[in-house]
Amino acid sequence: MKPDLILLGHGSGGKLSHQLLNDLIIPILSQNTQTDQNDAAVLAAPPGRLAFTTDSFVVDPIFFSGGTIGDLAINGTVNDLSMVGARPLAISVGLIIEEGLPIPDLQRVLQSMRLAAETAEVSIVVGDTKVVPRGKADKLFINTSGIGVLDHDYDIRGSLAEVGDKILINGTMGDHGMAVLACREGLTLDTSIQTDSIALNHLVHDLIAQCGTGVHVLRDPTRGGVATTLKEIALQSEVQITLDEAALPMNPAVAAACSLLGFDPLFVANEGKLLAFVKADLADQALRVLAQSPGGQQAAIIGEVTAKGPGQVRLKTAIGGLRAVEMLAGEQLPRIC
Amino acid sequence: MKPDLILLGHGSGGKLSHQLLNDLIIPILSQNTQTDQNDAAVLAAPPGRLAFTTDSFVVDPIFFSGGTIGDLAINGTVNDLSMVGARPLAISVGLIIEEGLPIPDLQRVLQSMRLAAETAEVSIVVGDTKVVPRGKADKLFINTSGIGVLDHDYDIRGSLAEVGDKILINGTMGDHGMAVLACREGLTLDTSIQTDSIALNHLVHDLIAQCGTGVHVLRDPTRGGVATTLKEIALQSEVQITLDEAALPMNPAVAAACSLLGFDPLFVANEGKLLAFVKADLADQALRVLAQSPGGQQAAIIGEVTAKGPGQVRLKTAIGGLRAVEMLAGEQLPRIC
Repeated sequence: MKPDLILLGHGSGGKLSHQLLNDLIIPILSQNTQTDQNDAAVLAAPPGRLAFTTDSFVVDPIFFSGGTIGDLAINGTVNDLSMVGARPLAISVGLIIEEGLPIPDLQRVLQSMRLAAETAEVSIVVGDTKVVPRGKADKLFINTSGIGVLDHDYDIRGSLAEVGDKILINGTMGDHGMAVLACREGLTLDTSIQTDSIALNHLVHDLIAQCGTGVHVLRDPTRGGVATTLKEIALQSEVQITLDEAALPMNPAVAAACSLLGFDPLFVANEGKLLAFVKADLADQALRVLAQSPGGQQAAIIGEVTAKGPGQVRLKTAIGGLRAVEMLAGEQLPRIC
Repeated sequence: MKPDLILLGHGSGGKLSHQLLNDLIIPILSQNTQTDQNDAAVLAAPPGRLAFTTDSFVVDPIFFSGGTIGDLAINGTVNDLSMVGARPLAISVGLIIEEGLPIPDLQRVLQSMRLAAETAEVSIVVGDTKVVPRGKADKLFINTSGIGVLDHDYDIRGSLAEVGDKILINGTMGDHGMAVLACREGLTLDTSIQTDSIALNHLVHDLIAQCGTGVHVLRDPTRGGVATTLKEIALQSEVQITLDEAALPMNPAVAAACSLLGFDPLFVANEGKLLAFVKADLADQALRVLAQSPGGQQAAIIGEVTAKGPGQVRLKTAIGGLRAVEMLAGEQLPRIC
């Protein structure tokens, strides 16, 4: 009879580990059979440069409105590859499980990972499972690393923003952060507040196909939100960015929740958004691509690169003032991803 | 003034995160500057197939005799790539830090990672840092994922063991497991008990150069030890393996500690050992390569593939009996890597 809870022995490398792997993890995540399991996966190398990224997910709770730690982990790594213009090729999954996690919870997370990988059309090719004693982790942490291929010669980097570039976003801000916070605190907020977690690789593919070298910078505003991400880019490119507050798209329910709880949505995490810095004369074309992507109805041009400079972000407020935007010093929402 | 302990804000993605990254992590682990930081690293793709692997390290304690969680993580991933015959190319580092970890401890771990990467001649190209509240993790967990390149056409896999193959090991068994256990329990064991953690990529390179297609299987006997690893290979290749107990190399101090504490060294973890299945007529040549590698003085031929079969491992004992070797059901030594 199978146990209902994860035991320390499931991380031993022995018989229980092999059972967990062969009865649960491999059948859900992978097409591989037991005889294919090796220390590393071997892949054909497509032509082009390689992209490589890693991200650990420690979100609390592991299930929240519209997503799980599992699809968040897959989408997050697909998106990090996409942000340098790479096509995601293969993903690794490293699980750190706290002893006592209900196996049905693990199963639900794994199924959400599989679905997210299928949607993004990326393969999970290798993995690792560790179990730590009760109280030495919190339910489940997931690392996803990813390999992508750049089958074009464009450079898309945080240091390539140019004066005149328009800055676009593919939808509303802060949905992920508020959705997780609501579930964590047991708040009964508006039910329209859901994570925006989604894979952006198809959108980025279309954007590059349409705008080519006109795409200078792509980045997903996760931890730290739109404000922190723009500040990073301003510093990397040594430019001044001016944002138009009136243009920032928000779900009214998220705006209300932020207002109620005292959060600035500019600093709240997103998991299905990108910021694109695009040459001005291609901005309208890029906006059409963003607007036609899933969830992109509220895509908008939210600002521009206004000058060279030591790395400032300014917000043109709705009443016409100019306010400097800085990174948060500390932690606004711990364990948001 | 810098704080001496890791704070939750160090994982926020905001100002403290950037300070930790720019003042500590990047200068130690990477040649990159701040302006090079992007969501993914972009690499030139050398010709050949790719290998991809991932491993999370949760060893307790994080410092032990002869090593740290950091060099263990680098060597472990270098070795997983090596075991499919790949040359390690790039490594990612994902840190999950418990709030309150002394920053000098983190620094010591990072320095050990840098040294291990330099020794293995592999680059750390991308990373991620998360911080979780006190009591939600245990000091520090590290995920290392790795990309390697196979610049030859040989297939080295767990399913390719052939009847007649000789089985070699590059030194003594159980050193890592006993070293960690001794530190964890505060035992004053013989000071010659140290982790065997080492990168095996140069050894594997030499072995393949000398023995080519004669190398059928390579695997590092980490969690679960030599016994579990051989059982896995026996199952994957559908063969019967016969081990010669008298030929198994042991550090006498490790043997004494195992005997005292009731551990079977066949099941104790190693972190710098490989098992090589080699065509019989090349076994002596392979043994010379292993013996000349660092720490390889006690390399030995420890058994052979004796028949086709449903996947058995048998131990020919010192007094001439035959004993079946199975995987451990549960956990012998939790958090050994």
